[in-house]
Amino acid sequence: MIYFITGNKNKYIEAKKIIKDIEMKHIPYPEIQADKLEDVAEFGEEYLKKQVNEKFFIEDSGIFIDALKNFPGVYSAYIFKTIGNEGILKLMEGIESRKARFESVIAFYDGSLHIFKGVCKGKISYNARGKGFGYDPIFIPDGSEKTFGEMSITEKNKYSHRGKAIRALSSLLAPL
Amino acid sequence: MIYFITGNKNKYIEAKKIIKDIEMKHIPYPEIQADKLEDVAEFGEEYLKKQVNEKFFIEDSGIFIDALKNFPGVYSAYIFKTIGNEGILKLMEGIESRKARFESVIAFYDGSLHIFKGVCKGKISYNARGKGFGYDPIFIPDGSEKTFGEMSITEKNKYSHRGKAIRALSSLLAPL
Repeated sequence: MIYFITGNKNKYIEAKKIIKDIEMKHIPYPEIQADKLEDVAEFGEEYLKKQVNEKFFIEDSGIFIDALKNFPGVYSAYIFKTIGNEGILKLMEGIESRKARFESVIAFYDGSLHIFKGVCKGKISYNARGKGFGYDPIFIPDGSEKTFGEMSITEKNKYSHRGKAIRALSSLLAPL
Repeated sequence: MIYFITGNKNKYIEAKKIIKDIEMKHIPYPEIQADKLEDVAEFGEEYLKKQVNEKFFIEDSGIFIDALKNFPGVYSAYIFKTIGNEGILKLMEGIESRKARFESVIAFYDGSLHIFKGVCKGKISYNARGKGFGYDPIFIPDGSEKTFGEMSITEKNKYSHRGKAIRALSSLLAPL
């Protein structure tokens, strides 16, 4: 059994589709302000490894928009809670270059630290479409016409940053 | 001698106008992601007190815009670096309620922790005016027609969140 330390049930559901042998556990941990998700994840892992006696992982993700100098980036969660997709679309009004990427970083601890990163390139849509959580309704991954919000979890996982990072973790676990 | 631990020379210059006996020292320290500046400052202070052998303080500040659910708040520095004042003004387009406040929190350590907070209420201007740093050109404090960007440092300190917090620290130091 491996713990996925998170307070976000949607993330857990996505991960569970790929790795069956995980359990969600909510333990708050400090997230630092940093330019890179890796630094946030490593810091959290250092804090948690003193408290958790099982193998565990945490995941941090964000959306980085080229035309906005990588905004909202590592602060995607906070910025979603405040200005939301409506705010992002307003900031992108009149901007033709819509390139963006989602990044997901997993820090897994089994006595030593393993970092996995998944990146999904794509673009910001002109309107919010579909459901999903967070920025899903305004992100169209390369190779699709749909936003993440218009996809099933299984379909989203094929493309998504988090799907890629979780599969990388899954490969490490496979021989176990 | 008291150290002001910061990498921001503008903040140091403002503080030095009020407290002469300080010196700027740049030691990077972790800033956590939190909803309140107090939590960021306390965490940083806990980290630094193990490393600094003199009395010291740190300062964290942010601008909280009512109509944007307190965005950019504790992430003001990052958000300024990315979308900047131009982005804030774009987000505020068509919004009549311009209320905002600047907050400054100082964590001072002299063997024990002291927290000082200064708040400056005001509003977001419709255009950037003047110089200053950060959000100064788009913030008009209550009681003035000018933005912080249009004021001298001495004038800004009369109104400003940071001026208030620094004066509170100064009162504590006065009997020394």
